[in-house]
Amino acid sequence: MTQTRRARTGGPPEGGPAPELIESGFALENADASFLHRGLNLADLAHVLDLSRRNLIPAQARRELLRLLLEVCDIPAEEFPYNPAYGEPYNSRERYFVSRIGDVAGWLHAGRPRREAARVALRLHLRRQLTELVAEATRFATELALRAEEHARTLLPDQTYLQQAQPSTFGHYLLSFGYATARDTRRLLDELDWVDTSPGGAGCVNGTRLLDDRAPVATALGFGGVIPHTRDAMWQVDGLIHILATAASLLSNFSKLAEDLEIFSSSEFDFVDLADAYTRSSILMPNKRNPYSLAIVRGASGVVIGRLTGFLAVTKSPSARSDNLIFAYGEVPRALDLSLRITRLITGVVSTLRVNPVRMREELDLGYTQATDLAEYLVQRLEVDYRTAYLVVGQAVRAASRAGIPGGGITGELIDEAAMAHTGHSWGLAGADLSEVLDPWRIVLSRRAEGGAAPDALASMVSGLRTDLAALADRGAIRTAAFDRAEQDLVSDAYAAMAEER
Amino acid sequence: MTQTRRARTGGPPEGGPAPELIESGFALENADASFLHRGLNLADLAHVLDLSRRNLIPAQARRELLRLLLEVCDIPAEEFPYNPAYGEPYNSRERYFVSRIGDVAGWLHAGRPRREAARVALRLHLRRQLTELVAEATRFATELALRAEEHARTLLPDQTYLQQAQPSTFGHYLLSFGYATARDTRRLLDELDWVDTSPGGAGCVNGTRLLDDRAPVATALGFGGVIPHTRDAMWQVDGLIHILATAASLLSNFSKLAEDLEIFSSSEFDFVDLADAYTRSSILMPNKRNPYSLAIVRGASGVVIGRLTGFLAVTKSPSARSDNLIFAYGEVPRALDLSLRITRLITGVVSTLRVNPVRMREELDLGYTQATDLAEYLVQRLEVDYRTAYLVVGQAVRAASRAGIPGGGITGELIDEAAMAHTGHSWGLAGADLSEVLDPWRIVLSRRAEGGAAPDALASMVSGLRTDLAALADRGAIRTAAFDRAEQDLVSDAYAAMAEER
Amino acid sequence: MTQTRRARTGGPPEGGPAPELIESGFALENADASFLHRGLNLADLAHVLDLSRRNLIPAQARRELLRLLLEVCDIPAEEFPYNPAYGEPYNSRERYFVSRIGDVAGWLHAGRPRREAARVALRLHLRRQLTELVAEATRFATELALRAEEHARTLLPDQTYLQQAQPSTFGHYLLSFGYATARDTRRLLDELDWVDTSPGGAGCVNGTRLLDDRAPVATALGFGGVIPHTRDAMWQVDGLIHILATAASLLSNFSKLAEDLEIFSSSEFDFVDLADAYTRSSILMPNKRNPYSLAIVRGASGVVIGRLTGFLAVTKSPSARSDNLIFAYGEVPRALDLSLRITRLITGVVSTLRVNPVRMREELDLGYTQATDLAEYLVQRLEVDYRTAYLVVGQAVRAASRAGIPGGGITGELIDEAAMAHTGHSWGLAGADLSEVLDPWRIVLSRRAEGGAAPDALASMVSGLRTDLAALADRGAIRTAAFDRAEQDLVSDAYAAMAEER
Amino acid sequence: MTQTRRARTGGPPEGGPAPELIESGFALENADASFLHRGLNLADLAHVLDLSRRNLIPAQARRELLRLLLEVCDIPAEEFPYNPAYGEPYNSRERYFVSRIGDVAGWLHAGRPRREAARVALRLHLRRQLTELVAEATRFATELALRAEEHARTLLPDQTYLQQAQPSTFGHYLLSFGYATARDTRRLLDELDWVDTSPGGAGCVNGTRLLDDRAPVATALGFGGVIPHTRDAMWQVDGLIHILATAASLLSNFSKLAEDLEIFSSSEFDFVDLADAYTRSSILMPNKRNPYSLAIVRGASGVVIGRLTGFLAVTKSPSARSDNLIFAYGEVPRALDLSLRITRLITGVVSTLRVNPVRMREELDLGYTQATDLAEYLVQRLEVDYRTAYLVVGQAVRAASRAGIPGGGITGELIDEAAMAHTGHSWGLAGADLSEVLDPWRIVLSRRAEGGAAPDALASMVSGLRTDLAALADRGAIRTAAFDRAEQDLVSDAYAAMAEER
Repeated sequence: MTQTRRARTGGPPEGGPAPELIESGFALENADASFLHRGLNLADLAHVLDLSRRNLIPAQARRELLRLLLEVCDIPAEEFPYNPAYGEPYNSRERYFVSRIGDVAGWLHAGRPRREAARVALRLHLRRQLTELVAEATRFATELALRAEEHARTLLPDQTYLQQAQPSTFGHYLLSFGYATARDTRRLLDELDWVDTSPGGAGCVNGTRLLDDRAPVATALGFGGVIPHTRDAMWQVDGLIHILATAASLLSNFSKLAEDLEIFSSSEFDFVDLADAYTRSSILMPNKRNPYSLAIVRGASGVVIGRLTGFLAVTKSPSARSDNLIFAYGEVPRALDLSLRITRLITGVVSTLRVNPVRMREELDLGYTQATDLAEYLVQRLEVDYRTAYLVVGQAVRAASRAGIPGGGITGELIDEAAMAHTGHSWGLAGADLSEVLDPWRIVLSRRAEGGAAPDALASMVSGLRTDLAALADRGAIRTAAFDRAEQDLVSDAYAAMAEER
Repeated sequence: MTQTRRARTGGPPEGGPAPELIESGFALENADASFLHRGLNLADLAHVLDLSRRNLIPAQARRELLRLLLEVCDIPAEEFPYNPAYGEPYNSRERYFVSRIGDVAGWLHAGRPRREAARVALRLHLRRQLTELVAEATRFATELALRAEEHARTLLPDQTYLQQAQPSTFGHYLLSFGYATARDTRRLLDELDWVDTSPGGAGCVNGTRLLDDRAPVATALGFGGVIPHTRDAMWQVDGLIHILATAASLLSNFSKLAEDLEIFSSSEFDFVDLADAYTRSSILMPNKRNPYSLAIVRGASGVVIGRLTGFLAVTKSPSARSDNLIFAYGEVPRALDLSLRITRLITGVVSTLRVNPVRMREELDLGYTQATDLAEYLVQRLEVDYRTAYLVVGQAVRAASRAGIPGGGITGELIDEAAMAHTGHSWGLAGADLSEVLDPWRIVLSRRAEGGAAPDALASMVSGLRTDLAALADRGAIRTAAFDRAEQDLVSDAYAAMAEER
Repeated sequence: MTQTRRARTGGPPEGGPAPELIESGFALENADASFLHRGLNLADLAHVLDLSRRNLIPAQARRELLRLLLEVCDIPAEEFPYNPAYGEPYNSRERYFVSRIGDVAGWLHAGRPRREAARVALRLHLRRQLTELVAEATRFATELALRAEEHARTLLPDQTYLQQAQPSTFGHYLLSFGYATARDTRRLLDELDWVDTSPGGAGCVNGTRLLDDRAPVATALGFGGVIPHTRDAMWQVDGLIHILATAASLLSNFSKLAEDLEIFSSSEFDFVDLADAYTRSSILMPNKRNPYSLAIVRGASGVVIGRLTGFLAVTKSPSARSDNLIFAYGEVPRALDLSLRITRLITGVVSTLRVNPVRMREELDLGYTQATDLAEYLVQRLEVDYRTAYLVVGQAVRAASRAGIPGGGITGELIDEAAMAHTGHSWGLAGADLSEVLDPWRIVLSRRAEGGAAPDALASMVSGLRTDLAALADRGAIRTAAFDRAEQDLVSDAYAAMAEER
Repeated sequence: MTQTRRARTGGPPEGGPAPELIESGFALENADASFLHRGLNLADLAHVLDLSRRNLIPAQARRELLRLLLEVCDIPAEEFPYNPAYGEPYNSRERYFVSRIGDVAGWLHAGRPRREAARVALRLHLRRQLTELVAEATRFATELALRAEEHARTLLPDQTYLQQAQPSTFGHYLLSFGYATARDTRRLLDELDWVDTSPGGAGCVNGTRLLDDRAPVATALGFGGVIPHTRDAMWQVDGLIHILATAASLLSNFSKLAEDLEIFSSSEFDFVDLADAYTRSSILMPNKRNPYSLAIVRGASGVVIGRLTGFLAVTKSPSARSDNLIFAYGEVPRALDLSLRITRLITGVVSTLRVNPVRMREELDLGYTQATDLAEYLVQRLEVDYRTAYLVVGQAVRAASRAGIPGGGITGELIDEAAMAHTGHSWGLAGADLSEVLDPWRIVLSRRAEGGAAPDALASMVSGLRTDLAALADRGAIRTAAFDRAEQDLVSDAYAAMAEER
């Protein structure tokens, strides 16, 4: 063997970490220990059982290790001696285990890197957060559908650019937010399939000589399957990106609703009013009752956009770089936790929202949201092309507004005048009864096609959406139950194996 | 009718747009006209056929309009008189149509806002881009699998933190990038389902009195279905967010590969070398052959992260705000176009990459990547716990490296010395034949479990992945064929309807 | 000399670029050629003059080169044969120069890499964009100050959470947007100092043997100085980050104003109305007059956030990586160009905005914005603590609103009742004249401290801000004039040197 | 007084907050209480002294309030009863004060909203973080300059695209990172001017009737001045955006260095090696010593990009929206805290970094970094144009590499052959002594122009940079001292005022 060209020493580092490293990297990782604690416990149990199944660990060591691990399963994360001075959380565990049972603790690391344990733990945590978010998101959309149903006949001037557009109902308006929620919930369940696969047995890079079957660990932990490629298993981040993107999308939809409600609950609009429990007072201004919940929803939506962006920036590195996951351990659970709290908040806001149909109707009556229907009516009645009808009605609206006449008061005479000005001849509408085409409620009733605001169309949507939501909620609930079962079984198996003689 | 409290005039604005508006909003929208042009043509055809089916348009007008629209179908976007001075692209079209056939052109707008036409057009464009990206992404992963197969026996020191970790193969390394690509391709196909639904017939807010069935337009345009809720149909952005997130995720994976290859193709590593056609020379330095393609891949990945973020920031607004989609018309197609070009580029890089097995082996032989297997071997042979084995091997590696002995030269004596130092007694390994456990190739052969680097395990992965990729590619190709067919049928139907007497 | 271990060939690549590379990297770079064209021309002139000054180029070659370069100075970028098939823009130039004057063109590259030329060109472009943006931003804030002055006495219920807070004036409200603009303008000028320093003479890495003084090129190009460290000179990106961050901040402020104005111009608020030239009509709805300009401002603000993020993600790479700047060549100028257009647009919106004091006053009169002043008045009159006064007034407001009495109608009796309920005794205010403390205009007049809404305080702010803006505008204008002068001198010098015999 | 059209009740909300609100908004705000605690204490003291100065608070109340506030000044944030169930932190304070001194506590709120107190507190916190970051950033760059000086003669093949470019020194390389740091430090000090101005006395919107001079509070808190416009004072966010952008830029520079060092410390490069205290071992692989600190630096850089983006997204709202600042209270201090820790970490890495000049020289000797100098030498010696010289040298490099001859072994004969092939005639260089132009050290010595790698040029840069850094550090230190003094004076004044009889 010849001398290598290298001057430096191989092997593990000697001496302790620098204080700046403890205060940065290790402190950061320990701040996330609570997210991984439970999963690390389960991963350790499954690993020891797997070593045992393959006769890689002496019986006595197995019993001692399992006893200790089961004890730790009952210690909450906050009470476990995680300490940045010892390194990241896994190091604290190793240290604690050695302090308790000496070298026997060393069997835990056979055939499994720290990284694998943490990857497993993250997925065990995330799968719970995802099913919880599925439950809360479907609850939101279900509440929304309820309120939509309740306001199927509450007339509203729907808007684009915040300018009155056409007559609609508050129910129709509200329901529209349910669909994006259902779609993002479906995406969450899709990503749950990504989360719920086992990186177990991947070793550091390409498995280990100690192991020839990666399925038992996966089964023990209740995973839906095994991630095939070991290097991919250790380093994949795409699912995390999509989880964060879905959270950002979900909250983006809530933020839109919150922004709308903030506007609608201004005294100038006065269309809705938040229940007191979702507002807060000023300390200074005795007149104020601020829709604070809406500001929280909107702000959180911005924050989560940043969490997604930040994680994407973190992953912009070469492959197999630890920072990708180290930062994921905290960033992803925290973003999901925030998303959960915000989903619950907006659900509360919606389900207690006070609606003011009088004001909505008042503004509808002051405006000209009938104009499109009027033009379409003229197209049908007179066989004029739409652009001509549009220009004539536009002119009539202009004239009416100058004369202080609201949309409901437009007459055949006004249209004739406009037609004369635009086309050079009257359209013979003097005395025509326009009441049907100018009545907002009649207009809404005409929206019978799929997705429209007519009560039947709305009822059919509400029913369809609720069916979809129930199915999504079921999919989530079934998964939750399966996770519960698998995790309980694992603990039971560990107790059994601890008790076994050999 | 009483006087409203409003002073301002209702009805459409009078006079032309301000120059600053032409130079900002309208110029921006017209810069995106090429993405929408073809879709607007198709949407217009389908709309006229729908009006005709419902007897809403006189036969003569129908014929004239269709003749003109079919003519415009043959005009490339660059040659159509889109002009910011006239407003956004739809306004240019309206103006052109009127200039050609006068008031008859006005029938086009019956029952359909500009917004709906543009929404349809965007989806018609995006569905093509998505299937194209599906095709290119599967092509990339298929090429990669081919190269992985070719290098199933090319030994490589796999790395974490860019520090040698364990022996693996270049084929195993390379293949790992195929899985994330396959997953993101699957996500693209999922979002294609979102894209490929029809907002047609949604009107501005809640449909139109002129229409009672939204299915015919959807069918005519070859959409997979109708978006139920009309307000949602007009304003949904969640699919766009996820398309961009998937593009960002896809490119993030390519960027990791590119960063790795940049490092591997340094003269210090010299593991790989790009084909000349993917490098570029310096103008100044005659020694340089720069892996320019890799920098382009990496940079584009950063850019697409920004496109996603920017779009999320755009959508942080109240609901039903036009900017959400106005900016989507350009941002999303451009990001997908960049993603397509980058996917093709990285495919070319990979398929022509020169690999240098000699250098990989050279570095493997200089290092200590056998250390883990050695420790695991000791655990099995001596029944010591892993942590103890780890510490002893770590000490042996340290001693070997100080003595200039590479990993392959570690002897039983060296281990005994380390064991003595650490545990106080020798492990009796003097003279032991460690050649098997220290031989990188033998180590690789031991990675027989699912996902490992052993040739059989790799072959099985290659085969599985290729099957999955073929299925994904097929799904995309079937959709493309269906789009082709539907769009051709629509044009044929329009020709037929143009020819019909009534 | 011993054999190296390397198998691969050194030296520049042979053969042409791959089609995928032309369609990605080279197409991308050529799309940005227009931003660099003028700067490359100037950089080339300065470089040839510098070579000449140092007698590094034969006189005949100098004359031929300068004649050609001066000719190219008059060719617009769109007409120059930039072509991705030849590589990035500098390659197209080299090719064109050789096609025109053969090997003589080769002198241009002595002692200067392509990179240096492009870096110089980017800075020459950016310094113009920055001074232009300084001019436009100060124009915006100056217009704003004018409108603020005009509405110094237009009462407005100022809001937090979009809930009426306290009486203020529309002028006070409007002026607040001027300060952030002034601060960001100052930051633009600070970053102009970063932009306006010369990377010239940095060579590829650490200068060149051909050059011992980097000042002449800097002077010839009118730069404010030389960037000291050559590697830093080539690769610094911090200024670009801050330019984009400042653009994002600037537009973020405009976006807030735009969002406010969108709300204020709803028919429900009806506080303001955009001039027709900044709105657009619907094609479908004859009643609509949409504040389209505001949507453009808001959307652009989101886009620029993404441009900043994307560029930060691009720069997340090792040092000295070409993608950092390659993508900057397009991203930064485009973001600044968009910022310029948006700044002009919002300026137009503000300067033509119609204000509706009647509606503002109407809403003020319906609300309870006097409540804080009333509580403060009670503190002073009765020596009660503020919290008690707040609770009593809060109760009085509640009672008044239930009775349909607006804030201006609150009486001493109402307060006494509330005080009785809260404190157990009356405050003896029955019959008290509260008109002064309840009159919004009197309240505004009391805001005399610095920054308040009282007319004098506002006038003093307007005057101070205008002085600051004028100074900022001057700083920009002085720079622009200096750039003009330097660039004209450079061209003149080049003509002179072209004419010189030796 | 006529009945308003409003149905809802004015005045503060009744009943407590909803549990979902406590768990979202209030929990979020309380999680940030530790950043504001000290500043709230100081703000409260200053406010009471100001009320006192203006005779707005009875002497007894003043004494009681000050006694309590001074007591709270000594309670660490963690021990103060902040509790989301009571609302945000200010509410907890109010509640605690009332629980201690009853209604007297109510005087605290006279003329000042909660918002103002929190804004002041945030600035008091940030000004400390900024000066601390200034101190750490200058320390980093100073350490770097020291290491650069030490390696002024350590030859390094500098790289672009990670391909060897030209000979340089490790000192020259290292120093380049100091400049961006100095520039961002200067920007931090500029933003400190933004932070260090007083929003005090701004009231909620436009001041308060109780106050006619905003200077005393500003002076008491040691602010550099008063923010003129009261609405701007309450709502400005531009400085926060720029603080985050500067942190992102600072860390982006560190991340580049970290990425480089990760590559340089691979065993394949082996240019540098981290001190053990900045690495960490694997639990599984006994051969590993991972440069963990570098991964932390790189990852944190990505995280901070996300924090900036997220905050920009948060601010994309209408004006005067509470979420803008509510989320800033936590996001900005946390991002700065992370930046501080990372700055300290990278300083430690650099100051303890082991450098391997032997390997750097080894790789330099194997390559062709002399090629540019050789071409430039030929230009000067033979008066050929650079492009021709480049092509000939490129050909010679190619031939040499094929023959296994490194750059230092290129001969006149090789060049003649290449010239013959390219130009058709020999350049008569056979036997020429090229040793000077091919010797990397001689090449470095030729880089004498400003910013070059020649030892004198480097020494001059080191000296200049250190002077600049010292000046920046001084500016920061002077501010820190002034803050200390002002804050101590404020507490002393409060003690004095507490003791005063009237």
